[in-house]
Amino acid sequence: MGTFFTRDIDKAMNKLETNGKTLFLAQDQGLEHGPKDLPGETIDPDFIFDIAENGEFDGFICQKGLAEKYAASYKCNLVLKVNGKTLMPPKDDPYSPVLCSVRRAVDLGAKAVGFTIFPGSSYEAKIFEDFRQVQEDAHDFGLPVTAWLYPRGKSIKNDLDPDVLAYSARVGLELGADMLKMKYNGNPKDMEYQVRCAGKAKVLMAGGPKAQSSKDFLKQVQEVDGAGAKGFAIGRNIWQHETPIAMSKAIRDVQIRGRDIYHALKRLEK
Amino acid sequence: MGTFFTRDIDKAMNKLETNGKTLFLAQDQGLEHGPKDLPGETIDPDFIFDIAENGEFDGFICQKGLAEKYAASYKCNLVLKVNGKTLMPPKDDPYSPVLCSVRRAVDLGAKAVGFTIFPGSSYEAKIFEDFRQVQEDAHDFGLPVTAWLYPRGKSIKNDLDPDVLAYSARVGLELGADMLKMKYNGNPKDMEYQVRCAGKAKVLMAGGPKAQSSKDFLKQVQEVDGAGAKGFAIGRNIWQHETPIAMSKAIRDVQIRGRDIYHALKRLEK
Amino acid sequence: MGTFFTRDIDKAMNKLETNGKTLFLAQDQGLEHGPKDLPGETIDPDFIFDIAENGEFDGFICQKGLAEKYAASYKCNLVLKVNGKTLMPPKDDPYSPVLCSVRRAVDLGAKAVGFTIFPGSSYEAKIFEDFRQVQEDAHDFGLPVTAWLYPRGKSIKNDLDPDVLAYSARVGLELGADMLKMKYNGNPKDMEYQVRCAGKAKVLMAGGPKAQSSKDFLKQVQEVDGAGAKGFAIGRNIWQHETPIAMSKAIRDVQIRGRDIYHALKRLEK
Amino acid sequence: MGTFFTRDIDKAMNKLETNGKTLFLAQDQGLEHGPKDLPGETIDPDFIFDIAENGEFDGFICQKGLAEKYAASYKCNLVLKVNGKTLMPPKDDPYSPVLCSVRRAVDLGAKAVGFTIFPGSSYEAKIFEDFRQVQEDAHDFGLPVTAWLYPRGKSIKNDLDPDVLAYSARVGLELGADMLKMKYNGNPKDMEYQVRCAGKAKVLMAGGPKAQSSKDFLKQVQEVDGAGAKGFAIGRNIWQHETPIAMSKAIRDVQIRGRDIYHALKRLEK
Amino acid sequence: MGTFFTRDIDKAMNKLETNGKTLFLAQDQGLEHGPKDLPGETIDPDFIFDIAENGEFDGFICQKGLAEKYAASYKCNLVLKVNGKTLMPPKDDPYSPVLCSVRRAVDLGAKAVGFTIFPGSSYEAKIFEDFRQVQEDAHDFGLPVTAWLYPRGKSIKNDLDPDVLAYSARVGLELGADMLKMKYNGNPKDMEYQVRCAGKAKVLMAGGPKAQSSKDFLKQVQEVDGAGAKGFAIGRNIWQHETPIAMSKAIRDVQIRGRDIYHALKRLEK
Repeated sequence: MGTFFTRDIDKAMNKLETNGKTLFLAQDQGLEHGPKDLPGETIDPDFIFDIAENGEFDGFICQKGLAEKYAASYKCNLVLKVNGKTLMPPKDDPYSPVLCSVRRAVDLGAKAVGFTIFPGSSYEAKIFEDFRQVQEDAHDFGLPVTAWLYPRGKSIKNDLDPDVLAYSARVGLELGADMLKMKYNGNPKDMEYQVRCAGKAKVLMAGGPKAQSSKDFLKQVQEVDGAGAKGFAIGRNIWQHETPIAMSKAIRDVQIRGRDIYHALKRLEK
Repeated sequence: MGTFFTRDIDKAMNKLETNGKTLFLAQDQGLEHGPKDLPGETIDPDFIFDIAENGEFDGFICQKGLAEKYAASYKCNLVLKVNGKTLMPPKDDPYSPVLCSVRRAVDLGAKAVGFTIFPGSSYEAKIFEDFRQVQEDAHDFGLPVTAWLYPRGKSIKNDLDPDVLAYSARVGLELGADMLKMKYNGNPKDMEYQVRCAGKAKVLMAGGPKAQSSKDFLKQVQEVDGAGAKGFAIGRNIWQHETPIAMSKAIRDVQIRGRDIYHALKRLEK
Repeated sequence: MGTFFTRDIDKAMNKLETNGKTLFLAQDQGLEHGPKDLPGETIDPDFIFDIAENGEFDGFICQKGLAEKYAASYKCNLVLKVNGKTLMPPKDDPYSPVLCSVRRAVDLGAKAVGFTIFPGSSYEAKIFEDFRQVQEDAHDFGLPVTAWLYPRGKSIKNDLDPDVLAYSARVGLELGADMLKMKYNGNPKDMEYQVRCAGKAKVLMAGGPKAQSSKDFLKQVQEVDGAGAKGFAIGRNIWQHETPIAMSKAIRDVQIRGRDIYHALKRLEK
Repeated sequence: MGTFFTRDIDKAMNKLETNGKTLFLAQDQGLEHGPKDLPGETIDPDFIFDIAENGEFDGFICQKGLAEKYAASYKCNLVLKVNGKTLMPPKDDPYSPVLCSVRRAVDLGAKAVGFTIFPGSSYEAKIFEDFRQVQEDAHDFGLPVTAWLYPRGKSIKNDLDPDVLAYSARVGLELGADMLKMKYNGNPKDMEYQVRCAGKAKVLMAGGPKAQSSKDFLKQVQEVDGAGAKGFAIGRNIWQHETPIAMSKAIRDVQIRGRDIYHALKRLEK
Repeated sequence: MGTFFTRDIDKAMNKLETNGKTLFLAQDQGLEHGPKDLPGETIDPDFIFDIAENGEFDGFICQKGLAEKYAASYKCNLVLKVNGKTLMPPKDDPYSPVLCSVRRAVDLGAKAVGFTIFPGSSYEAKIFEDFRQVQEDAHDFGLPVTAWLYPRGKSIKNDLDPDVLAYSARVGLELGADMLKMKYNGNPKDMEYQVRCAGKAKVLMAGGPKAQSSKDFLKQVQEVDGAGAKGFAIGRNIWQHETPIAMSKAIRDVQIRGRDIYHALKRLEK
């Protein structure tokens, strides 16, 4: 029974892990939210790629445009986000069209692809069809698939509801995603359940908007890691941080070096 | 006149039968209904696969994600469910997009594919077109096709109406399905007629939600088998059962070993 | 100018004719209307195939499912109906999706394909596009195309209006159908005009629901044949008849052996 | 810069011209308008093909069905109309689906293809996409493309408005049509401007419904030719004429032999 | 990491630059706006192509129709506009279908392709999907992609709002465009920010409708060039100018020869 898939994808997953855990830097907010999320020098992709190369990351998530124009100059594992949308059109249930073929992601040297699924959207059927194609193409090329599982649409009253999060995690597993980028609702028990619902698909916490303080953010990292999540995909909490590279290392202190938050915070004082 | 199809599919069907009858374990509820249908340890796919391997089944039905991540460790005939949907989007007439190509089902070692048809849905044309492609691809690869025939949508007042069930069975036959997974409305005469309408397509009773008691469920098995159905595709009534493996054997006692219900129930006492 | 098409299709047409005329047995009502049209033993496809083999027919019309599961055991020219729909979804202007690829029809040994066109439907563009593909694929494989020309939809006030029938016949010719299965409105002059509008496309009368009496039906046969139609595609008036095989011969008496109705009716008395 | 296209298409165009000008006979009214436009013997395609062969034409325009069943018996340049629609469905902005692939047009020996564009239709995007495919396929095979440019739809108040006609002509040029079949609004100045807007795309006047008298029609021919149009595509004014072949020659007298109308009319008296 | 793309496209970009800057002549208004934008002799494509050849341009932008029929006679770098629409259909959020395949653009000798994106349109998903295909095809053939980034649709209150322009520029970068044709809102600071948001994608100012005076237009050129834009794509301000070729040189004086506006204006007096 098709064991080669399992083996290939497992190997490819290992290259995106440190001690079995993952930390991705993400910058797809330029498309998803616009320049307002990219204040000051963060508007310059070179600034972000530089963090990706010099921080302590297992990969960097971006769209095709940045990958084509910038990635060749930097050393980092590319996780190509292959679908997306903007905030500009009239409000509707969300749907993100495919913006990069898997073949092109492979041409660009990607080590994994990323794809946003919106459980609850009235476009579910279309999203699932796109995902099927991307997931199968990616696995044919030996690339793991990271799915963003963001419950949204008029039928979702609360996207942090633990039942909604649990169901979303299961959807990711059943559809064949290898990693599930999901929000953390602040309750470690709920994250534990998401992790169980996800089975062998690995849950990565989405960083979200900049936290109140570094300490607050590291506390989330600790809770989520403790709840069994396999990693983090973080953008604004790193590159909007005043010392992004140190922040990546502080996260790693907590995630993989077993340091406590106070120890990790010291890095940021330097 | 294309006898090779008939012969190939017949051979492949034989491998999914015991004494000419079929018992499938099914777990696609994680996607279709969410974790609420998977209480306790049943949320863990390994728990379910273990039942699939050790119970007395002709095959195990699951989605691509579980097949890719778990099936390689277990011995069981895989019936890959190739379409599906969730309960999360706004209510509408039902449509299940294709979630796994037939080629990928073959790569994963599937011995048959499963596909849900919703007779009565306003998406009938789209469902039939998807089914045509899946059915032809599957037969090209020598795989039998199990169709879920679940009448549903705003034009279906009662999905257990015998005329609706009979028409649905005939639809399955005419479209080229090899097995028809259908609900039992509790009347053996109606099941007999469904079986006649299905012709050489084999009717499998869908297990449905957990029955009141094991006895109630085995009584259904007996009635449906007596009405000429060729088998059962059961999920919750097995893995939500306190002794799932014994339950699978009790069903087989009734279905293929000609035991009465009281004899079969004894297995569950042990 | 592409004479090979003309020649190939003409040859293939000859194999579906007796003395230049055609009689098809049809059973696609199981899908189109449901089991209510298949009373008693007619629900069993073997019963119908047996009539197809032993009656006096140039071909038998059915869907892919019956062709795959039954046709190999019988001798008859298969006319594969490649699109269709049910009565179950909410009422709408009609559209029949393609249910069998032409390639699969060829695999199954079909000698022609059948396709329903609904002139007047608001889905005209989609129907015509499907037909283009089917017609060109069929001609590439040397198979003639029988088009059902059934004017229907909210813009059609009366589907037996002679202008509507005449226009529909012409549509069949211009789109490239080789045979046009059409209703007879009871007026031989109107059928004559349909036949003229159809040019070299051959008009076949659709049998419709069971006639009041055998005599009534044979009278229709005589009128329609006299009006220049090249044949008949009949289902219920044969297999719902008490002596289906004799009925097929009675029709042939009138159609190709120049017998009068009273002579033909004698067959049915035996 | 792709000069081979220009050269190939120019050569193919020359074969559809007499002294640099074009006269096409058209019969696609059977599909577009129905038998009401084909009174008496004109309902018989052989009657029309005979005119096409014996009249003085550079080509004959028809749908695939007529081409397949009749064209092999006649000598004339075939201009295959590859899209179309009927008048039967509920009224809506117009869209004509593709009814014949370019490959099939080539198989049938076509020397050019015809395609209707409806500038102003709310289906503009779909029409343009179809046209792109047809135009590129045709040019790949070396076939010129005649576009019908018929402004229509709820946003078109007057399809003979000179601005609407001028814009439509330009659309034909920019999209890559080689000939533009367009209506004449009766004002030679407006036709002159259409011709200028069309640039190197050649304008052909559409014949339209039967004119009041032969003289009226020939007067139009003279005006339109004088305004710089390269030709005519005429149906009803020829085959509904009592002497169709003489009428074709009378048109040629005016168009290419520099005769005056009165001289030309004499042909029709014979 | 796919450095060949970067290198190939960079080389192809160099051929469309003079001293690292770009000036394109554009004529796609015939399709987009109609003949009203092409007064007098400008309606004749030869008139425009002549300016393209003899003015000081890095390329000429036009649709497939003009490229096929005129470009072979002129020396200029062709930038093929591969999508477009008219003003004729009922008002709706904008969508421009693909009108020329990238393969055909290559056949025609194009050195780049152009594609209009409407950020804010309710057709965003469809536009982005089309763009993905065109962008990837173009890069496969080594052709740079110029994207028109024209925010429009009912959700865009003001298409010159600096936030809207900045977001649109970023969209162009993230989707993989190489050049971004955008409007200038008259504020150099806003253009500077657009340029920063565009990163390594090069911003070209769209010329827009004819300016009040040559001086006004040259002032815009100076400001936009000063703000970091890499070039201009201009139509009406050149070919509606009384001395188009001199105007192209005046623009170059300001853009690449460091002349002041008054010096440049002198060219126009001659």
